[in-house]
Amino acid sequence: MTLSRGRDVLAIPGPSIVPDRVLNAMHRAAPNIYEGELIDLTASVLADLKRLAGTDGEAVIYIGNGHAAWEASVANILRPGDKALVLATGRFGLGWAAIGRQMGIDIEVMDFGFTGPVDPAQVEARLRADPHHEIRAILSVQTDTASSVRSEIAPIRAAIDAAGHPALLAVDCIASLGCDRFEMDAWGADVMVAACQKGLMTPPGVAFVFFNARAAAAAVDCPSPYWDWKPRTKPDVFYQLFAGTPPTHHLYGLRCALDMILVEEGLEAVWRRHAVHARAVWAAVDAWGAGGAFRLNVADPACRSHAVTTIRVESGDGSRLRRWCSDMAGLTLGIGLSAPGIDPEGLFRIGHMGHLNPHMLLGTLATIEAGLGALGIARGPGAVEAAAQAIVGGGGSAADATSAGLRQVTAARLHG
Amino acid sequence: MTLSRGRDVLAIPGPSIVPDRVLNAMHRAAPNIYEGELIDLTASVLADLKRLAGTDGEAVIYIGNGHAAWEASVANILRPGDKALVLATGRFGLGWAAIGRQMGIDIEVMDFGFTGPVDPAQVEARLRADPHHEIRAILSVQTDTASSVRSEIAPIRAAIDAAGHPALLAVDCIASLGCDRFEMDAWGADVMVAACQKGLMTPPGVAFVFFNARAAAAAVDCPSPYWDWKPRTKPDVFYQLFAGTPPTHHLYGLRCALDMILVEEGLEAVWRRHAVHARAVWAAVDAWGAGGAFRLNVADPACRSHAVTTIRVESGDGSRLRRWCSDMAGLTLGIGLSAPGIDPEGLFRIGHMGHLNPHMLLGTLATIEAGLGALGIARGPGAVEAAAQAIVGGGGSAADATSAGLRQVTAARLHG
Amino acid sequence: MTLSRGRDVLAIPGPSIVPDRVLNAMHRAAPNIYEGELIDLTASVLADLKRLAGTDGEAVIYIGNGHAAWEASVANILRPGDKALVLATGRFGLGWAAIGRQMGIDIEVMDFGFTGPVDPAQVEARLRADPHHEIRAILSVQTDTASSVRSEIAPIRAAIDAAGHPALLAVDCIASLGCDRFEMDAWGADVMVAACQKGLMTPPGVAFVFFNARAAAAAVDCPSPYWDWKPRTKPDVFYQLFAGTPPTHHLYGLRCALDMILVEEGLEAVWRRHAVHARAVWAAVDAWGAGGAFRLNVADPACRSHAVTTIRVESGDGSRLRRWCSDMAGLTLGIGLSAPGIDPEGLFRIGHMGHLNPHMLLGTLATIEAGLGALGIARGPGAVEAAAQAIVGGGGSAADATSAGLRQVTAARLHG
Amino acid sequence: MTLSRGRDVLAIPGPSIVPDRVLNAMHRAAPNIYEGELIDLTASVLADLKRLAGTDGEAVIYIGNGHAAWEASVANILRPGDKALVLATGRFGLGWAAIGRQMGIDIEVMDFGFTGPVDPAQVEARLRADPHHEIRAILSVQTDTASSVRSEIAPIRAAIDAAGHPALLAVDCIASLGCDRFEMDAWGADVMVAACQKGLMTPPGVAFVFFNARAAAAAVDCPSPYWDWKPRTKPDVFYQLFAGTPPTHHLYGLRCALDMILVEEGLEAVWRRHAVHARAVWAAVDAWGAGGAFRLNVADPACRSHAVTTIRVESGDGSRLRRWCSDMAGLTLGIGLSAPGIDPEGLFRIGHMGHLNPHMLLGTLATIEAGLGALGIARGPGAVEAAAQAIVGGGGSAADATSAGLRQVTAARLHG
Repeated sequence: MTLSRGRDVLAIPGPSIVPDRVLNAMHRAAPNIYEGELIDLTASVLADLKRLAGTDGEAVIYIGNGHAAWEASVANILRPGDKALVLATGRFGLGWAAIGRQMGIDIEVMDFGFTGPVDPAQVEARLRADPHHEIRAILSVQTDTASSVRSEIAPIRAAIDAAGHPALLAVDCIASLGCDRFEMDAWGADVMVAACQKGLMTPPGVAFVFFNARAAAAAVDCPSPYWDWKPRTKPDVFYQLFAGTPPTHHLYGLRCALDMILVEEGLEAVWRRHAVHARAVWAAVDAWGAGGAFRLNVADPACRSHAVTTIRVESGDGSRLRRWCSDMAGLTLGIGLSAPGIDPEGLFRIGHMGHLNPHMLLGTLATIEAGLGALGIARGPGAVEAAAQAIVGGGGSAADATSAGLRQVTAARLHG
Repeated sequence: MTLSRGRDVLAIPGPSIVPDRVLNAMHRAAPNIYEGELIDLTASVLADLKRLAGTDGEAVIYIGNGHAAWEASVANILRPGDKALVLATGRFGLGWAAIGRQMGIDIEVMDFGFTGPVDPAQVEARLRADPHHEIRAILSVQTDTASSVRSEIAPIRAAIDAAGHPALLAVDCIASLGCDRFEMDAWGADVMVAACQKGLMTPPGVAFVFFNARAAAAAVDCPSPYWDWKPRTKPDVFYQLFAGTPPTHHLYGLRCALDMILVEEGLEAVWRRHAVHARAVWAAVDAWGAGGAFRLNVADPACRSHAVTTIRVESGDGSRLRRWCSDMAGLTLGIGLSAPGIDPEGLFRIGHMGHLNPHMLLGTLATIEAGLGALGIARGPGAVEAAAQAIVGGGGSAADATSAGLRQVTAARLHG
Repeated sequence: MTLSRGRDVLAIPGPSIVPDRVLNAMHRAAPNIYEGELIDLTASVLADLKRLAGTDGEAVIYIGNGHAAWEASVANILRPGDKALVLATGRFGLGWAAIGRQMGIDIEVMDFGFTGPVDPAQVEARLRADPHHEIRAILSVQTDTASSVRSEIAPIRAAIDAAGHPALLAVDCIASLGCDRFEMDAWGADVMVAACQKGLMTPPGVAFVFFNARAAAAAVDCPSPYWDWKPRTKPDVFYQLFAGTPPTHHLYGLRCALDMILVEEGLEAVWRRHAVHARAVWAAVDAWGAGGAFRLNVADPACRSHAVTTIRVESGDGSRLRRWCSDMAGLTLGIGLSAPGIDPEGLFRIGHMGHLNPHMLLGTLATIEAGLGALGIARGPGAVEAAAQAIVGGGGSAADATSAGLRQVTAARLHG
Repeated sequence: MTLSRGRDVLAIPGPSIVPDRVLNAMHRAAPNIYEGELIDLTASVLADLKRLAGTDGEAVIYIGNGHAAWEASVANILRPGDKALVLATGRFGLGWAAIGRQMGIDIEVMDFGFTGPVDPAQVEARLRADPHHEIRAILSVQTDTASSVRSEIAPIRAAIDAAGHPALLAVDCIASLGCDRFEMDAWGADVMVAACQKGLMTPPGVAFVFFNARAAAAAVDCPSPYWDWKPRTKPDVFYQLFAGTPPTHHLYGLRCALDMILVEEGLEAVWRRHAVHARAVWAAVDAWGAGGAFRLNVADPACRSHAVTTIRVESGDGSRLRRWCSDMAGLTLGIGLSAPGIDPEGLFRIGHMGHLNPHMLLGTLATIEAGLGALGIARGPGAVEAAAQAIVGGGGSAADATSAGLRQVTAARLHG
């Protein structure tokens, strides 16, 4: 008998939970696409996307998904035959590399494995060994959604500069934008790609490419009218922003999501919230690991994503656990993804990105606790309590309550 | 700093969480109220409400709330000056009594306190002491939302019959319908009142009165055209069902909610789910109580509601806890309600009625755990684990998974 | 073959079309009913309802429909046996009278027929003939939804004053509030009743009673706790505003509707818009009537509602036309309602209240034109053109376009 | 003063009006993208898209707009340097040609002007003049959204065959799919492109490419992983269907729209409805033209789109009219689009595609009537009446009413 008759919750690393308000914003009549509100709204969305990315450069919205953004970024800065260096820390760095290869780019992968970040020293060494600057671009993910490894971006820029190399630095923030701190201009990224269905809390359907003046100057003649970012950033007419019909309802959804992030909560607070939630997940996994096979895929907390956590278990236990949580309790966890030398059956993932509060996150951890019990999987005690403590320590202390706004209680003592 | 930026959740004892599907069903253009779909839909809603109540009698939908249903029931079976016996187990029995008194009814209250159920023997004794049958009706709540005491209804009927007394038995199922087992005809209730915003998972706005042939025969000339149940059950024209304009959108919402309860899950499964969730709450409170002041208001599990749990704490701790959960974690708990001799500050309540799965319930308990930690309130360990175990023991065992439908996994190994 | 596959439209005199924004506002999670946002929102709704009614008196929201408001108003100002004078101009005045009689009030009806307004002189004469002031209250509808007759309210007050009579004046604005000008305090109404599903554009479910200090002073001991307006206007605790659980989602819907009316459009503009739309309907009917049996039920334009128009046709033609429009074209027209001496089959009604623009109204008139053609019903030509002209003359002249806000055209010349 | 305070309506040639039910279907929690319902739903959507297209070939869904589909189709069948013949009847044929040229294709345009269809004889002659079969593909629009010219597709196939030429025939049905009859296999189209926001009534965001075995056999090595249709039609894992994250909410919307088209109304009835509505528009324009400059851009009814109508007016009148309708009456009309020798200011367009019934269409025409009057633009009389007659003649005759389902009238005579 299933008890799963309430609201299903997704704790996968994207698509993430869509706020009711975003859904409401998208629940509207088709707007005029020639004039009026939509035109202004689009301008404001583009401006706020840049704020979110930390850049004064350009922002482009593609109707597409993360793979579309990968391809769009490559199509604008690399020609077939050009050389690019991909810095991989899991499945998604390798995925971007594969896209590039299919497009005819001469891709060289520096694989940093599945459990740790990019090593800037190795990048610098490689660039020093490229005296003729054949490497036109370096592609790096900030957070690899498969491994949950998070790499520092500024040191990669420093390594490139130290090597005196002109290569462009392109960063995949698909799984990190709006979750982990990212500052495009300050950190020296030239290109950045992202999508709407993770930290931006909007149903999948649009993806983003940001680029700065260096990237614009280095851009190639794009062979694809759809991916070409030039008319999309210097449009004569509105429709060029989207190479045709705009994604009307997604624009309304994004407007709402950006208001929630930038206006209501504030970007610094969003990042801090994600950090606290991440620490709660880590505390639970550490507690489970004290009495069983559980462990965090990434040992060093400084290199862990704040948006997704990959967990190692006995092979097969991840699938059993996911099945139980889904069938019995209304919780969908993320599957393990394969990588060289990695058995996906020995992994599962918890997404903790976007529209999340302690109730939702602790419910996820407590449901896993129940599932482990139901399945007789060995584990240490006190995981949920440890997570609860991390929540308290990280942000939810009583002393902070005042800042949350002490709403006046108009008591309603009689009726329930 | 608040972390409460995801979906707020209500764990109050009504209004309960509205399923997205019910909201969607209510998100529609105004229908024709003269002919077509709405007419048929209303007939089906009335029929299914009777199934839910376990009666072949009549069902009436009032645009109103629980208090409206209280008043409507009284207005149809009692005249000013008539005598009625109210069996109280908390604030809401007393509330029904107060309504009756304001209407001029000669109300006598048998108060069974705040922590235990109606005692049928005392009812029988009282009726035997009424040889002239002055008592026209007995009003009893099944579950008192304030105390979370649940009384058995069939033994009350047996007591009335044993006393050979003709009084009507009217039951308040506002907090129990669709949560705790209730069988109107089998248990011998003559009148039953309920509302839509608890087990029926619909926004507040309509309330119900059910009655059988005995009640119809004993009905008085109702002085209120609005409360009068006669034209509402034998209408010449559709509008009489609602004494005027029908509650169009609520009818669509109810249709959806009834489908979820009766067709998709099944009423027996709904009741079992509520029982399991209730046991999970009790297990958590028992664990907390092992190291602190926490205890369940109702000692005997057989007399506890499956829809709401009242918890005793140190005076003031309930309010502090509720505030923390609301401000920090997106969780709204139920306030304590006063009753004779009861300090509402020494209580709080958890609603676990309606649209609920283990993820949501365990999230609530784990959030309370975090709040207790943040506030430094003494408590025993292992509460959430105990609740998780109760979930597993009660319904979510792995062996049951098959019956939940082993959905085919179309693996999506690469992308996350 | 039906062509009715687009969005059905209601042109009945209530429930009226619900704006998408109101539906969106109601599409939300259940709120906390004890504290926070809902408390403040309710206060603002009550304040704005008073602005809408033009009163500094009290406003009460009942979960109920128009009949509930009728009963509530009577229950607070009249006791069984009290005498009241009902001024009837159609079915709904008679309906209010019938409600009063069932409640035991000694109702006297002054029936002004089905095609013209209340005559204040007759009212004054009747009151002069009541030297002992046995008449406690005068009940009058502003607009009778059945006949579409609209009566002037201020002259009725003047008549009462001229007679030096202390009777309360209660007015039914169910079909007129938010459509036709109404100024409660300025016009001297003591009590006013209305509901949400007409000019207020919200799904049926709540109704309103407004009253001034005179009515408060004259109020009786209300025998019904639910209708009693006293605790609802001087509540100790929030729940008393609604005698129990509040109509949560309707409050959000009302908040949105009131913003649309009072903030965005402005009440004077709302009234003017309704006047223009009404004149368009009249122009069309006059044109049809030039070649057939069509005529407006109310001859004098000054006595016609701006919210609903009752149209006389050959007996049976109304039903045939309504059927054709509904089955073939997605348009629901209002049925004719019987009254003494009136054959409902010789009537149909067009509702033009609330959320309406020229596109919707002209679509309704042009669909009727099509239906008349399909059914071979004789009529004059040029009806829709006449209506279009009335629109233009009334508000949509080109010179006005500037005030509508000349939105910048960002031309999108290439794509369609 | 604007009267535009009801529901705005779009009568542009796409995005078209989104049915409330489609919006409701998209208003839902994010689904699991790895297993369960979404997988099955996607399979059913693909199958039904093929039914809609009339093909047993393959269907591919791209997250993208119409331009994306244009590019995807070219990228799979043509290499840079390959020769293709574009048959243009307006702006959009030229647009597809421009896309191809930017992709490096050797595009030759046969321009049939702005007011008439493709001439198959000329196509045949051109192909006979290509003895070495250098032309790899012929690209033709069925309906050009700018000119509203509709060309016959089967004769083009016949011309190709008559010339004994192996060129692939690719057809743009973006503005016609689900509006005008199209039978991909029967008519011999090898490739077809479309999008969701016109006849499919879904917010913009996904586009479609269909192809048959001939096209599959002739497909080139696609240089773009995103456009490559091969992994999308023979996926090993689900995510390959969309080259990454699926367009979750659009899939739910499409499922609903396809049910409305294929199950509830039936494709033949959908086509017939569009034909009737188109004839109503033509009748109105003809009537206006009798007294002014109005005329239909396409003289021959057999060559007119059933989804969009381009109308010629005095230069500037289109813009003035569009402005008035939008500002005053809540109606958005389509702008004129430039083409060689065509002044866009001398055009405007009415979209009549998708979710449309006579009420909506007649409202559009009557609003235009009002606007012409307000602006003093000369025109003939009786336009709306002529349109109404066309509605009746085309489908809405009384004799047909029975088939619409004679719904039982449960009369509600008293209340309005």
